Amino acid sequence: MGGDHGPSVTVPACLEFLKIHGDVVIVFVGLQDEIKKELSKYSSSSVDRIEIVHAEELVAMDEAPALALKHKKKSSMRIAINLVKEGSAQCCISAGNTGALMATAKFVLKTLPGIDRPAIATIIPTQYGHNYMLDLGANVDCTPEHLLQFGVMGSLLASAVDHKAQPRVGLLNIGHEEGKGGEVVRKAWDLLSAAPIHFIGNIEGDDLFKDKADVIVCDGFVGNIALKTSEGLARMISGILREEFGRSVISKLMALLAMPVLKAIKRRLDGRQYNGANLLGLKGIVIKSHGSADRFAFKCALEVAYRTASSGLLERITSDMASANAALGLISSEPVLDPQSKDFL
Amino acid sequence: MGGDHGPSVTVPACLEFLKIHGDVVIVFVGLQDEIKKELSKYSSSSVDRIEIVHAEELVAMDEAPALALKHKKKSSMRIAINLVKEGSAQCCISAGNTGALMATAKFVLKTLPGIDRPAIATIIPTQYGHNYMLDLGANVDCTPEHLLQFGVMGSLLASAVDHKAQPRVGLLNIGHEEGKGGEVVRKAWDLLSAAPIHFIGNIEGDDLFKDKADVIVCDGFVGNIALKTSEGLARMISGILREEFGRSVISKLMALLAMPVLKAIKRRLDGRQYNGANLLGLKGIVIKSHGSADRFAFKCALEVAYRTASSGLLERITSDMASANAALGLISSEPVLDPQSKDFL
Repeated sequence: MGGDHGPSVTVPACLEFLKIHGDVVIVFVGLQDEIKKELSKYSSSSVDRIEIVHAEELVAMDEAPALALKHKKKSSMRIAINLVKEGSAQCCISAGNTGALMATAKFVLKTLPGIDRPAIATIIPTQYGHNYMLDLGANVDCTPEHLLQFGVMGSLLASAVDHKAQPRVGLLNIGHEEGKGGEVVRKAWDLLSAAPIHFIGNIEGDDLFKDKADVIVCDGFVGNIALKTSEGLARMISGILREEFGRSVISKLMALLAMPVLKAIKRRLDGRQYNGANLLGLKGIVIKSHGSADRFAFKCALEVAYRTASSGLLERITSDMASANAALGLISSEPVLDPQSKDFL
Repeated sequence: MGGDHGPSVTVPACLEFLKIHGDVVIVFVGLQDEIKKELSKYSSSSVDRIEIVHAEELVAMDEAPALALKHKKKSSMRIAINLVKEGSAQCCISAGNTGALMATAKFVLKTLPGIDRPAIATIIPTQYGHNYMLDLGANVDCTPEHLLQFGVMGSLLASAVDHKAQPRVGLLNIGHEEGKGGEVVRKAWDLLSAAPIHFIGNIEGDDLFKDKADVIVCDGFVGNIALKTSEGLARMISGILREEFGRSVISKLMALLAMPVLKAIKRRLDGRQYNGANLLGLKGIVIKSHGSADRFAFKCALEVAYRTASSGLLERITSDMASANAALGLISSEPVLDPQSKDFL
């Protein structure tokens, strides 16, 4: 039902998105009446590519994931993920409760062969482009093998979605040299070095925003702190800019005079364009939008969903993870399934 | 010998600092000739409050801490810390190799009673003030007890140096609710809650720059990543500002017109003013300056050193850490020493 704002954001965002992508059908899952009411506000020819599946229950933003999983079997979130499992939808996108989305997706869809735990991969802006960081908070305690799997999945994401031939995979650490960090990170370094990916070694926090790596691997605790710290700092800097330009009549005049440049800066720093995180490693595509996403931000998450669904990513993770594990002599926790078999998705 | 730039930065910074603080004597430890040569460039009445102790050896910026500790017993770093141990200096300040400084300080000075491991505490700017974060990279793997000790030390730092009556101590975590994070963080929550400090619970990455906590506790891995990520993002945003304002003749003109506001923004975002990290938990005061510090930044680190040395912090850590451990029924790894005894410093 669309995070903090509900259909008032998701409906217009989807209509705009459908106008661009003529090959897409969107299924809204949620309170039928609310969705219909919102849809009635727009006269768009794309409306005929919208379907509605009614769901009585909603998962609250602060609901405990385990409880949502146990007691909300008819929630909009659960039904939307079921559609992916059944093959009726190629992708599920939600601006709802992240923990509940991950728990439900993992329970319903299961992980891909060779993957122990799914990870949240988000887009990080750099000065002239972007990279991917994973995990962003799904996995607090990780083993070296988990970090290896994140590296392989991240590499395949950058390759499949951004068409990068040899994505550079970096391990987030507190120094560039080998041997830095705790035991888990040091062992992950060994595994990533031996994996059939383009591993460039350790990268530090200040490398995140440089064009140094296409994929940054870390555990969910560190990833979450790094991302939220960045968001907090960006907000503080915006606050200082607003405050200084709004301080007096003269400074306001200066802001007016410099408006075209200030607008260009704002556009480049606009975090909304990076909305849409991939829940990687599941037997299905699930995209998480920020709960507070507005129309533009939600449309960006829809674009991520579209690009991911068109990329053949799941099949590639399945085959490449198996060969990475084989190359490293690791046994994945699940048997490798044939992507063509009916058990695959 | 002063980090990346040596005496060419530290000598003028110290002379400016001495001009403000008439009660201070500074001892330069390093290559006598170089220091004298640099000093001869300035005619300042403060020169008579400068002493020089010659040191042949220098610890390189990239030297392994263990090797520096073992083989560089006559290094400027070692001799400077010895001066603190002997009581000839109240404080040691260095812009050199952080790892070597910490290892040498720990070996020579030892930790205060009740403290297992020293931590690096740095100043984090907020929109209208600052707070302290520790640890910043000295301790990669921490136990809950270490995090408790960081909390108590940080609280005493904010209280002694900034005269805050009841510093708010927050635990860096991936959610505000109790029970978030891994086992170590969850146990640290319990210990911090029971300690005789004003513990405000978990805080998230985006709270760092808000006026939410005066002290932020985290392990050295997470702290280092959070700090460096912030530095990287600030640098990227500065780069984008410079790029957009420098894009054309017109945008350059806009920058000129808005210069007073842009300068005010630059001043507020200037990271140099937060230079000077405290190596907390040692039987002596050791301050680490950024290796790349310029004259202004090094002077800021000198101010941190001055404020810390005048604060009676060490005595307070000793007495309060003992009572915190007693309140929690914890036994510190070292016997509690009387701050008045000759073994104390």
